[in-house]
Amino acid sequence: MSLIVMKFGGTSVGSVDRIKNVATLVAKKVDAGHKVIVVVSAMSGETDRLIKLLNEIDEDYSHREYDQLVSTGESASAPLLAQSLISIGHKAKSFTGIQIGMQTDKSHSKARILGVTGERLVKALDEGFVCVVAGFQGFDPESLDITTLGRGGSDTTAVAVAAALKADCCEIYTDVDGVYTADPRIVANAKKIDVISHEEMLELASLGAKVLQSRSVELGMNFNVDIVVLSSLEDLPGTLVTSKEENAVEKVMVTGVTSDKNQSKITISGVPDKPGRASDIFTGLAEANINIDIIIQNTARDGVANISFTLPKTDLVKSLAVCKELAEKVGAISITSNEDIAKVSIVGVGMKSHSGVAAKMFNTLYKNDINIDMISTSEIKISCVIEEKSTERAVKALHDTFIS
Amino acid sequence: MSLIVMKFGGTSVGSVDRIKNVATLVAKKVDAGHKVIVVVSAMSGETDRLIKLLNEIDEDYSHREYDQLVSTGESASAPLLAQSLISIGHKAKSFTGIQIGMQTDKSHSKARILGVTGERLVKALDEGFVCVVAGFQGFDPESLDITTLGRGGSDTTAVAVAAALKADCCEIYTDVDGVYTADPRIVANAKKIDVISHEEMLELASLGAKVLQSRSVELGMNFNVDIVVLSSLEDLPGTLVTSKEENAVEKVMVTGVTSDKNQSKITISGVPDKPGRASDIFTGLAEANINIDIIIQNTARDGVANISFTLPKTDLVKSLAVCKELAEKVGAISITSNEDIAKVSIVGVGMKSHSGVAAKMFNTLYKNDINIDMISTSEIKISCVIEEKSTERAVKALHDTFIS
Repeated sequence: MSLIVMKFGGTSVGSVDRIKNVATLVAKKVDAGHKVIVVVSAMSGETDRLIKLLNEIDEDYSHREYDQLVSTGESASAPLLAQSLISIGHKAKSFTGIQIGMQTDKSHSKARILGVTGERLVKALDEGFVCVVAGFQGFDPESLDITTLGRGGSDTTAVAVAAALKADCCEIYTDVDGVYTADPRIVANAKKIDVISHEEMLELASLGAKVLQSRSVELGMNFNVDIVVLSSLEDLPGTLVTSKEENAVEKVMVTGVTSDKNQSKITISGVPDKPGRASDIFTGLAEANINIDIIIQNTARDGVANISFTLPKTDLVKSLAVCKELAEKVGAISITSNEDIAKVSIVGVGMKSHSGVAAKMFNTLYKNDINIDMISTSEIKISCVIEEKSTERAVKALHDTFIS
Repeated sequence: MSLIVMKFGGTSVGSVDRIKNVATLVAKKVDAGHKVIVVVSAMSGETDRLIKLLNEIDEDYSHREYDQLVSTGESASAPLLAQSLISIGHKAKSFTGIQIGMQTDKSHSKARILGVTGERLVKALDEGFVCVVAGFQGFDPESLDITTLGRGGSDTTAVAVAAALKADCCEIYTDVDGVYTADPRIVANAKKIDVISHEEMLELASLGAKVLQSRSVELGMNFNVDIVVLSSLEDLPGTLVTSKEENAVEKVMVTGVTSDKNQSKITISGVPDKPGRASDIFTGLAEANINIDIIIQNTARDGVANISFTLPKTDLVKSLAVCKELAEKVGAISITSNEDIAKVSIVGVGMKSHSGVAAKMFNTLYKNDINIDMISTSEIKISCVIEEKSTERAVKALHDTFIS
C-alpha cells in the first residue's frame, strides 16, 4: 500500500460542485488501494475577500493578524472536502496547520517550514481515514501564532507533508496537464515533458513556467520527493518531477525553452574603478530588497567602469530611486534604464555533458536577426537578454533548434 | 488595574464599520486604565453562509467537520477586530480557541468547557496587549479536534475566560440595554433591572428572556463571575448579574415576569395504576431526547390515571409518535394534545422569604378571568400554564400586581 499526497488549488475547490468533483478523484485513488492525504487551498475568491476586509480596516496591516485571518480560508475548504468524502462513503478528517504540527519560523506571511510532526496524520491514516489538510498555513511552535507560507504555499505544504511522511508521490493538480517544453501559446508544437529533474524544474519555474511554486520544488529536491504535475480536469499522465536514478531517462540536451518579459535593465555609468564600489552598489540594492539577476561590469577605461544589471520590471521605479542615491554615494556619473527587454532561456541537465550548446543558441538567435544584450549561464541553463519585441520569435526558433 | 472581559455578538461585528465601532468602545475601556479581553462572534451571516455550503454537500453532515468549518467564522472576525485596535494605536492580538487553551469535552457542536489554560492570554495582557478571542470554539485536548459550544456559545466563552483569569467583570454587549422586568413589547412600563442574581437570571433566561445564554449564566453562578448585560449602541449602565453579597440590594419579591408561547401539552389517559408505568413513559421520552417541563398525574380512579405534561410546541409532532408507542406499551387508553397553551412565570429570590406570593399570582389571574391549567413552583419561580390567547393579558396583570 502506497501513500499519496494530492494537492488541489483554489479553482479546483472553488464551488460545492468542484469540491464534489475533487472528492471523486480522491475516492478513485483510495479505491485503488492507496492511503491518501489531500492538501487544499482556500476556495477561489475567498482569500481575496478576506484581504479586502482587512484592507478596508487598514492597508498597513499587522502581518500576524493577516495570517490569523487569511488562514481561515484553507481551514474552511478542508472540512468541506472532508465532508464530501464522508458523503460518498469514505472515512475522512480535516486538519489545520496546528493540528498536523506544521511548524514554521516566525516570519509572518512568508514563513519557512521547520518541520512537520505529523503524528496525528499517521494515526488517522492508520485508522483508515483520508486526511484533508489545510494548505498554506503553519504555526510558530513557541507562540502558537498562525503563520502563512506566502504565494503558492499550498504546493509547499503538500511537498513538506509528503517529505515528512515519506509519501511515495506528491501529485499537484492544476488546470494544465503538465509541464511543457515551451509555452504552448507561443510554440504551437510544444510537447508535454514526461520526466524532468527537480533541478531543471527549478530553472523552468523560476524562469516563468509558473506551474509549480519554486519553494515546493526546492523542498522536493532536498527531500527527494517525486512530484507529479497533472490536470484536475482530464485523466492524463502529467509530468513527473524526480531526481531518482531509477526514473532517469536518456538525457536530452535541452528540456525546455522559457521566456520572461518582466525584465528591465539599469546601467550605472562612470563608476570609479576602486575596490568596494560594486560591492557598495549591490549591498545597497540587497538592503532595499531588490532582487537583481544578471550583472555585467565592463572593463574599466580611463579609471571608470559601467555596471549593468537586470531586475524585474515591476521593481524598476523603486530601484531607480535607490540607485540614484547609491550612484551619488560611489561617485558615478549617470544612470540609464531600459524596460524593453526580455530574457529567453534554454534549460536541460543534458547540457552538462554536451559542449557547444551555448554556441548553438547564440547562432540560432543570430540567424534570426536577434541581438543578444546580456548572457548568463549555469550548468543546466543558458539565458540571453534580448529586445522584448523579439521574445516570441526567439522562443520559437530555439524550440525548433533544440527540441522539435 | 482591573481586568474586564467584553463580549460582542455577530451583529456588533457584522461589517467593517461596526468592527471599527467596537474597537472604539474597547479603546475607551483601555484608556480608562483597564486590561481588556474581547470575545467576538462571527460576523453576522457568516456562520449561516458556511452552514449553507455544508448543507449543499450533505445535510446529514459530520459534526466534527461542522465544527472545523463553522469555527472559522470566529477565527476570522477576531483578527479583524485586533487590526482595528492596532490601527487606532493600541497593541492587540487575536487568538483562536486552541491558542488560548479553551479545552472542552469531545461533544462536537455542543461541547462543554473543561477549563481554560489561558497562559498565552496572561502573557499578552502583561505585555500590554488587548486580547481578542474567537468565541464559540474550543478543542479536545487529546485529539486537538476543534469543537464548538452550541448556540450562544460566545457568551459562554466570555464567562469561562472571565472565570479562568479571575476577571473583575464580564460585559456582554447586545442590542438591548439590559434585562427588563417583562418583555417591553408586552408591558409598556417594563423597567430595566439594575441588579439581578444569577439564579434569577437563569430562570428568566430559560423562561424566554433570551438576552443571555443559560449556560453562560450557570457558569457565572458556579465561578461567581459578575456579568453585565449592556447595549453596544448606547452608553447606558445595563443590568448587573451578580451573586456577591456586597452587590446585594434589598430583595424585591418579584424581579421579573416572563411568558413562553412555545408550549404544548400531551395527556395520556387511562394509564393502568401500576408501579413503573409513569417511569416507563418518561424514560421513553427522555430516550427520544424530548425535554418535558411540567408534569401532572391525576389521582387514580377505577385503577387508571391520567398523565399530562408540557413540552416545546416544536417537539410536539415527534413526541406524539413516541407517545403512541409508549401508550401501547403501558396499556393506556388514549392520547390527546393541546397546542393552544402558554406559560407565564414570575421570578424572584424575594419569594423565598415572602409567603402568599403564589396565592397573589393565582388571584390576579382569576380576577382577570384567566384559567390556570397547570402549576409549577420552585423556590424562586412560580409558573402557570394558561390559554395561549391570554398570554399578554396575564403578563400585564402580573407585572401590575408585582412590579409596577
